[in-house]
Amino acid sequence: MKRIAVLTSGGDSPGMNAAIRAVVRTGISEGMEVIGIRRGYQGLVEGNFILMDTGSVSGIINQGGTILHSARSLEFKTPEGFARAVDNLHQAGIDGLVVIGGNGSQRGNYELHRQADFPVVGVASTIDNDLYGSDYTIGFDTAVNTALESIDRLRDTATSHDRIFIIEVMGRSRGFVALHVGIAGGAEAVLIPELPWTLEEVVDVIQRGYRRGKKSYLIVVAEGAAHGIQLAEQVEAATGYETRATVLGHVQRGGSPSAADRVLASQLGAYAVRFLKSGERGVLVGEQNECIVTTPLEEVWSKDKPLDPEMIELVKVLGA
Amino acid sequence: MKRIAVLTSGGDSPGMNAAIRAVVRTGISEGMEVIGIRRGYQGLVEGNFILMDTGSVSGIINQGGTILHSARSLEFKTPEGFARAVDNLHQAGIDGLVVIGGNGSQRGNYELHRQADFPVVGVASTIDNDLYGSDYTIGFDTAVNTALESIDRLRDTATSHDRIFIIEVMGRSRGFVALHVGIAGGAEAVLIPELPWTLEEVVDVIQRGYRRGKKSYLIVVAEGAAHGIQLAEQVEAATGYETRATVLGHVQRGGSPSAADRVLASQLGAYAVRFLKSGERGVLVGEQNECIVTTPLEEVWSKDKPLDPEMIELVKVLGA
Amino acid sequence: MKRIAVLTSGGDSPGMNAAIRAVVRTGISEGMEVIGIRRGYQGLVEGNFILMDTGSVSGIINQGGTILHSARSLEFKTPEGFARAVDNLHQAGIDGLVVIGGNGSQRGNYELHRQADFPVVGVASTIDNDLYGSDYTIGFDTAVNTALESIDRLRDTATSHDRIFIIEVMGRSRGFVALHVGIAGGAEAVLIPELPWTLEEVVDVIQRGYRRGKKSYLIVVAEGAAHGIQLAEQVEAATGYETRATVLGHVQRGGSPSAADRVLASQLGAYAVRFLKSGERGVLVGEQNECIVTTPLEEVWSKDKPLDPEMIELVKVLGA
Amino acid sequence: MKRIAVLTSGGDSPGMNAAIRAVVRTGISEGMEVIGIRRGYQGLVEGNFILMDTGSVSGIINQGGTILHSARSLEFKTPEGFARAVDNLHQAGIDGLVVIGGNGSQRGNYELHRQADFPVVGVASTIDNDLYGSDYTIGFDTAVNTALESIDRLRDTATSHDRIFIIEVMGRSRGFVALHVGIAGGAEAVLIPELPWTLEEVVDVIQRGYRRGKKSYLIVVAEGAAHGIQLAEQVEAATGYETRATVLGHVQRGGSPSAADRVLASQLGAYAVRFLKSGERGVLVGEQNECIVTTPLEEVWSKDKPLDPEMIELVKVLGA
Repeated sequence: MKRIAVLTSGGDSPGMNAAIRAVVRTGISEGMEVIGIRRGYQGLVEGNFILMDTGSVSGIINQGGTILHSARSLEFKTPEGFARAVDNLHQAGIDGLVVIGGNGSQRGNYELHRQADFPVVGVASTIDNDLYGSDYTIGFDTAVNTALESIDRLRDTATSHDRIFIIEVMGRSRGFVALHVGIAGGAEAVLIPELPWTLEEVVDVIQRGYRRGKKSYLIVVAEGAAHGIQLAEQVEAATGYETRATVLGHVQRGGSPSAADRVLASQLGAYAVRFLKSGERGVLVGEQNECIVTTPLEEVWSKDKPLDPEMIELVKVLGA
Repeated sequence: MKRIAVLTSGGDSPGMNAAIRAVVRTGISEGMEVIGIRRGYQGLVEGNFILMDTGSVSGIINQGGTILHSARSLEFKTPEGFARAVDNLHQAGIDGLVVIGGNGSQRGNYELHRQADFPVVGVASTIDNDLYGSDYTIGFDTAVNTALESIDRLRDTATSHDRIFIIEVMGRSRGFVALHVGIAGGAEAVLIPELPWTLEEVVDVIQRGYRRGKKSYLIVVAEGAAHGIQLAEQVEAATGYETRATVLGHVQRGGSPSAADRVLASQLGAYAVRFLKSGERGVLVGEQNECIVTTPLEEVWSKDKPLDPEMIELVKVLGA
Repeated sequence: MKRIAVLTSGGDSPGMNAAIRAVVRTGISEGMEVIGIRRGYQGLVEGNFILMDTGSVSGIINQGGTILHSARSLEFKTPEGFARAVDNLHQAGIDGLVVIGGNGSQRGNYELHRQADFPVVGVASTIDNDLYGSDYTIGFDTAVNTALESIDRLRDTATSHDRIFIIEVMGRSRGFVALHVGIAGGAEAVLIPELPWTLEEVVDVIQRGYRRGKKSYLIVVAEGAAHGIQLAEQVEAATGYETRATVLGHVQRGGSPSAADRVLASQLGAYAVRFLKSGERGVLVGEQNECIVTTPLEEVWSKDKPLDPEMIELVKVLGA
Repeated sequence: MKRIAVLTSGGDSPGMNAAIRAVVRTGISEGMEVIGIRRGYQGLVEGNFILMDTGSVSGIINQGGTILHSARSLEFKTPEGFARAVDNLHQAGIDGLVVIGGNGSQRGNYELHRQADFPVVGVASTIDNDLYGSDYTIGFDTAVNTALESIDRLRDTATSHDRIFIIEVMGRSRGFVALHVGIAGGAEAVLIPELPWTLEEVVDVIQRGYRRGKKSYLIVVAEGAAHGIQLAEQVEAATGYETRATVLGHVQRGGSPSAADRVLASQLGAYAVRFLKSGERGVLVGEQNECIVTTPLEEVWSKDKPLDPEMIELVKVLGA
């Protein structure tokens, strides 16, 4: 394997740059040339390639976003676009591809493996942490810490004004971010897509607290579990207590990556190159039980990553 | 003057605790007793008073919110409630009152001065910075820095995805927060309530940039100037470029105060006690040209605090 | 088990308060009374006990340090002091004890188990991460992130001035902090107590870099591996390049805990109570492979926690 | 004026990049060409020049350090080096020069004005805030906030362990950083070079506190007032209480600039170009009483910037 390429795809997550840096420097130290593909699969279709040297990834380990940019590509999903992408890889003499991204991105990756028999490995990178095959994904820890900072700030106001705050965090179909943020933020309740909930339960938590003299509440909801602004109106209507909503939104995607995300990204990026070199392909590189492991790409979305039910219980006991 | 009281009122702002600490410790060092009134004017009506000693304000200088809590009080605005409030002050043997808060809070303060001839001084504290009589108000610097952190994060995503972001910040009728955040964040445009703007102008900034190859934009809007989510839809419709909105909301109110806010709050709180002792009353204590000064409370809302027009110009030149 | 006690001991680490909160609230939810012991083992000797209710741990999850305070206790190590401590536990009707702390603290804990047959469990809490029985200890993640912030700042100056910086981080006998900080900070070299190193090797890294045009360097050293200020002088003497040292020191101990530390502390604190209730004793509660597990206290210091040798390799490849 | 140049010199301070950006973009918007000089006066001697366009300063407003680098230059201080520097300016067709830096840097600037009659303006940029002619200098606010973060962390440990901490901050001959950090951090005492102090006074503050039950202390010292490590030993010897020292060092120089520093840098950089264009020369551009003003360079070091004596008083009253 003499020349490999790397691209970032899907929503950006903090640590992608650290992963790119690890791929580039490990590749070079293994005697390979490393090509950066700009703008994700769209860049693959368009041949938007650039040769990367050691200096090209200097000073990026602490930067959010991705220096290779990301973009949606409808073209890549057409047979013509896909064929052009494969053709570009061959024409550029590329022997292997590392795709840094989340669920959707790893599907594109899988198609390159399945349809074109191209040597690919994926690197688990999404703030949602919803990829089967990696206990944690790159960007999750930073996103949780970013949301937590906001929650610490909101608690100041909640306490000072005896108010209820509903905080909507990211997580369309999974509640990892909400659950971690909720426990770390000392939230009184957490609503996640994986568990049914009713307005009555939420109101009940608040009213039981009020009877004990508790007057401020933080309730964390995953965007896939409840619409924050709507829920705030419902809670205020049902309890009569002043309730406000905050939708954290895209701020959770950016920012300098946390130490854990930089270390994880450095490990996954380095191992992706090594696995590719040793002949593995069609796999996701992730971290399980403190080890770097691979999982066949088709398992990554056919299997559901479990959510620790004990953590749900913890919210109830500790948020009391 | 042997016994003074202090209350916080209106929206909380970072640094209120530092101001409470300064009032309490300066009062005690001047040989006075200091009474804390909980829950703003409502606590004044209800007689929710507590004697404060030096230790009661230990370890709060770095805390957001207000340990004395804040609350709206409809009762204080009724003749009966107002009378009860004045009565409570007299019954408790209180000789002077320090009110830490923004515009609305200083009006209540003024009524105590005008109608009840009670010795009051105000301390300028609001994240909006919209109080005439103080170049900067307590909480403004922290709020601007908090919003700026979010903007720095959003720029990561804007750049990585070649996207336009509309960021709505606080400031109902004034654009101080938006203008400072916009310049510090390197925004391409800033919309404030003080200046008329049109969708065409915003679109024009973007299209001129696109012609030069610029593909990501941050546009900061004060909540009183534009509705962020709506504007994002309009911009996307008009330009065809992907546009997202983020409403920063209440996170701007909380958090550990910045150094500048802690220093300002310490100075204003200390001087409020000294001015009260020296016989000044019915004034707002603020900072102008690096000096601590007083302004008659009636001027505080009859006059408009000017916004530096040069800063508007600066956005246009530097955000290019 | 009707009444349990909790104490913090040894150097403070961010997340101790979150662990105290979890012990108190879990205990109460299990129908127990929870006693807080102030000032560690010294408070145990002196009977410095306080009954804790749910409200007593409100608003502390985001605070560094420990509300129960910590202290060294020479008295506890004497037969008389030890006897008095045990006596105090019995007199207060305490059925079980949770000790939150690091290596030294868990030894005291073990003595209560071994000599007095008192039901004890330990909670793994130290920024050094050097406790066998827990993949990560409470406070480690925060300390690494705190050190990393400093390193990100130093890199600005190193780059602007083409300078070498030696950064001394905590870790008397183990290099966990140094290694994580070094990888996350993009350090050119990391020196840890577990691995021999020579000045020649350090100089060689720098000189090879210079030949490639690299002019700024960050070298992270664990306090147990090298004396930062001395090493800076040696490196400057050997290379002729301007070299500065920074000793991060105690700032690494404090600060609001990171999300990961708050979640870990919440889990370990809650499980400590459950394990105690279920009859386990003389064990350390820790986290291994994403599960909460117990390890007999005598193993905690008779066994050495391994350091991943791959991470050392990673520094060399990525810091190139 | 058709072509101007900009350089950064002396110790780096956060906001220098924002100032460079403002000079470049304002220059271009005024129809000028802008040349960046790398590595300060050394680059001037060596002709290390680079043409800067709008894009060359994109994405740097939030970066610490200086993209133009800084360096000491002994050569510039020799007649030959100085002559070569002037020659280089003329040869490159440069009509005016903006020097961003502190005291020493503005002296070099002054020599270009006085000896070579070259049109120069200075921009006040140093974390020490010790430049006469500007109420605040670029980098000061960030440095104070950075030091404050460390102090907030140290207080956690000081409180948890009933300990005394001596914190040494920057400020060789002036106490601005120490004084602001001390007030904002709630320090019990602050030692600055401008005011004589004795060990007895420091010990007295501590012993009076102990008698009132106060057991933890933070004492902030400017590096020019006391040697932190030494003082800690003396205090421990004199009081018998555990005392630790932390020397913050170079971390105070780096990091993403605060909002206030970015706004100030943007204003000073923009005005520097305008003043140069309007014919002013040999002056420092600074901010006084919320206005952008100029001060003849020779006054900048012949006059002493006053330190508000009220702030010293404030430490004593509030740190009680």
